Formats: sequence, structure tokens, C-alpha cells
Amino acid sequence: MNFSSKLLENAVAEFAKLPGVGQKTALRLVLHLLNQDKQDVERFSTAVTKLRNEIQFCRVCHNISDQPVCEICSSHRRDHSLICVVEDTRDVMAIENTNQFNGVYHVLGGLISPMDGVGPSDLQVDTLVERLKPTDTNEVKEVVFALSATMEGDTTLFYLHKKLKNFNITITTIARGIAFGGELEYVDEITLGRSIATRVPYENSLSK
Amino acid sequence: MNFSSKLLENAVAEFAKLPGVGQKTALRLVLHLLNQDKQDVERFSTAVTKLRNEIQFCRVCHNISDQPVCEICSSHRRDHSLICVVEDTRDVMAIENTNQFNGVYHVLGGLISPMDGVGPSDLQVDTLVERLKPTDTNEVKEVVFALSATMEGDTTLFYLHKKLKNFNITITTIARGIAFGGELEYVDEITLGRSIATRVPYENSLSK
Ligand SMILES: [Zn+2]
Ligand SMILES: [Zn+2]
Repeated sequence: MNFSSKLLENAVAEFAKLPGVGQKTALRLVLHLLNQDKQDVERFSTAVTKLRNEIQFCRVCHNISDQPVCEICSSHRRDHSLICVVEDTRDVMAIENTNQFNGVYHVLGGLISPMDGVGPSDLQVDTLVERLKPTDTNEVKEVVFALSATMEGDTTLFYLHKKLKNFNITITTIARGIAFGGELEYVDEITLGRSIATRVPYENSLSK
Repeated sequence: MNFSSKLLENAVAEFAKLPGVGQKTALRLVLHLLNQDKQDVERFSTAVTKLRNEIQFCRVCHNISDQPVCEICSSHRRDHSLICVVEDTRDVMAIENTNQFNGVYHVLGGLISPMDGVGPSDLQVDTLVERLKPTDTNEVKEVVFALSATMEGDTTLFYLHKKLKNFNITITTIARGIAFGGELEYVDEITLGRSIATRVPYENSLSK
């Protein structure tokens, strides 16, 4: 593209780095911002910088949070004996939206993917194992895996199941109402809610 | 959506204000930025703020520019007797990409659209008329309209033609290789280049 301005070119280049945003879309978004009031554009930039600089991750479940321990982990109304293991914060949001789950979460921060060079040590695996060790005040009874029905989801499930099976804990996965290859975050609320309600022991979920 | 963080919610809300960006896309873009280095996110924000605060518009053609007079307007290699009238900077970029045009531009900054409350006074019309008045050093011989083949484009063309027809200037429009309703910025380079090369007098372009 022949830009008439370096400032314009830079801004478009930055937007075009975002996933799924091509040059033409980036230009459209940047020209839109250029038409807004200065204070609106300032608010946009500040929201982004502030998020990146001030964001915290809950030290219990590792979900994105504004406090050291998130609202869910610090709530007495949630069932702390039931932990739902998910890939990222979008999955927490999707499951919270169903109103079908009253336990707490553990956010792995990704899925095992040898192709992308993501191994167990890149994920919150050790902290999950730590949470499952029984203490005087807390005993986890069930871990339910809510991972995408993809190769990476299944690999992660297989790895974590091996790791957790010697704990005296029920291990379940959400029911597969989800087609193979389906990404969790795109599943509608009803399907997702139902698949949590009808979760099955991990062994039963394996295809024969 | 149930956000686990106000900072996250704010950033997503800002992205969701962009045209064509829904909540889910906004969340995906924001989580991507959250995974980048702080300095990368800072560079993103700075590029946007800098663009909005420091951008200039060429005082001759009104295209986005880093200088008071843009590179095209200040170039001695361009034919200043030939002015191409376009809606916005995307059209300048698209036409420059074809390498078929060696004149200069006039950027209207929009199209007449009674539906959207955009009238001639909202556009760079008076400055166009001013540019067409003959002076000792410069005489414009031809104005070529390169406007989208939409209702708004045709309305603008009709209005400007009436306004300019008493000047001793040839008025042309780019050949309509473009389907009715086609937006100029989405036309491929070859079609656009050819339609500039085969431009026709405005009167000939009217459908009978
Ligand atoms: Zn938490
Ligand atoms: Zn200029």
C-alpha cells in the first residue's frame, strides 16, 4: 500500500498485527479512529495500555483478575470442592454465562500442543496438582475438564488424567455435545450448559 | 458477558466500538494484546494516539499528510493540470497503486448523503472550486471524478458537475467497469487502472 503519511502507515501496521486483521481492515479501523474526538482515541489507547500494565492473574485459579485472588475464588457461595479446568479466560466467561456451574476454576493458560511448542511446563499444571493435595480446610472432591474437543484438548486431557488419577478425586469431562474439532468458546450457551450438567467420568468419555 | 476484570471489560468495550468488531472479536483481539510484551502494546497505543494528535491534512488536496502540503501536491513530476476528485484517502491509495494516474488529487472527505445528513458544506467543495480558478502559474485543464458507483457517488457527481460546468475545464469520470453499488476501495487494481485510463466525459457517462 502507498501511504500518504508515516503516522498513518505505522498505525495501520500495528492494527494489522492483530489476529485476523488484514491491511484493508486495519486501514478501515484506523481511519475510523482518526474521525473520532481526540479524547475518545485517548480513552481507547489508555484502556489497552492500562490493561496490559495493571492486569493481574488470580493466584489460586490463574484467571484474569483485578485482585490477587479473583471474585470466584474468594466467594463463599461457590463449591470449592469442585474445580473446572479450562484453557483460558474466555472459557470461564462462557461457562459462567450458562449459570450451570457453581464450582471454581483452574485456568491452564493454553493447551498442550507439540506442533506449537507448548508443553506441560508452559501451562499451570503444577499449581493444579498443588491445589488437589488435601489440607485441613479444603478437600477437592471432583475435577471436571472443560477443554475444546480438538487434538490439543484431547492431548491435554490425556496428560492431566494420567497425572491426577492417583489422587482420590473424581475426574470428569464435560459431555461431548460438541462436534470434534469444535472450539469451546464458540459453543452456544445451551449446549455448553447441558454438557456441564451431564458430565461423565473421563474413562467413559474415551471413544472405543 | 461476565468479565472477571474491569480492566479487561473496558478494553473489550473500546475495541467493540470499532466498525465491524463484535464483542467476541474484541475479546479475542484484547486477549492477544494481553499476551504481547509490554513494549509492543505500548507501541500499539502510541501509534494510535500519535496518529490522532499529530495528523495533518494537505492544505491543497486535503489528503492525510505528515506535512502541510503532501508529497503528491509538492511533486514537480505530477501533472498539476489534471485533478482527480475522490471521496477519501483510501481511494488515493487505490489509484496510486494502479500506476495509471500522474495527476494530482482532491479529497472531498466524504460523499453527499442526505440520509446521513452529509451536505456539500461538510465536504471540501469550496476549496475544489477555488483550485479551478485560473491563475498565472497554474491552469487546471481536466477534472476526473473517481467516485464510488453508489447512490451517494452519483449524487455528489451530479452536484459537482453542475457547480463546475461553467469553468472552461474538461470534466470526466472514470469508466464504469465497476458494477452499480460497487465501492471504489474494493475494486481490484486492474479494473480500477483501466477505468482511469478509459475515462469518459461526464455527459457520456450518464445512463440514458
Ligand atoms: Zn481465582
Ligand atoms: Zn496534497
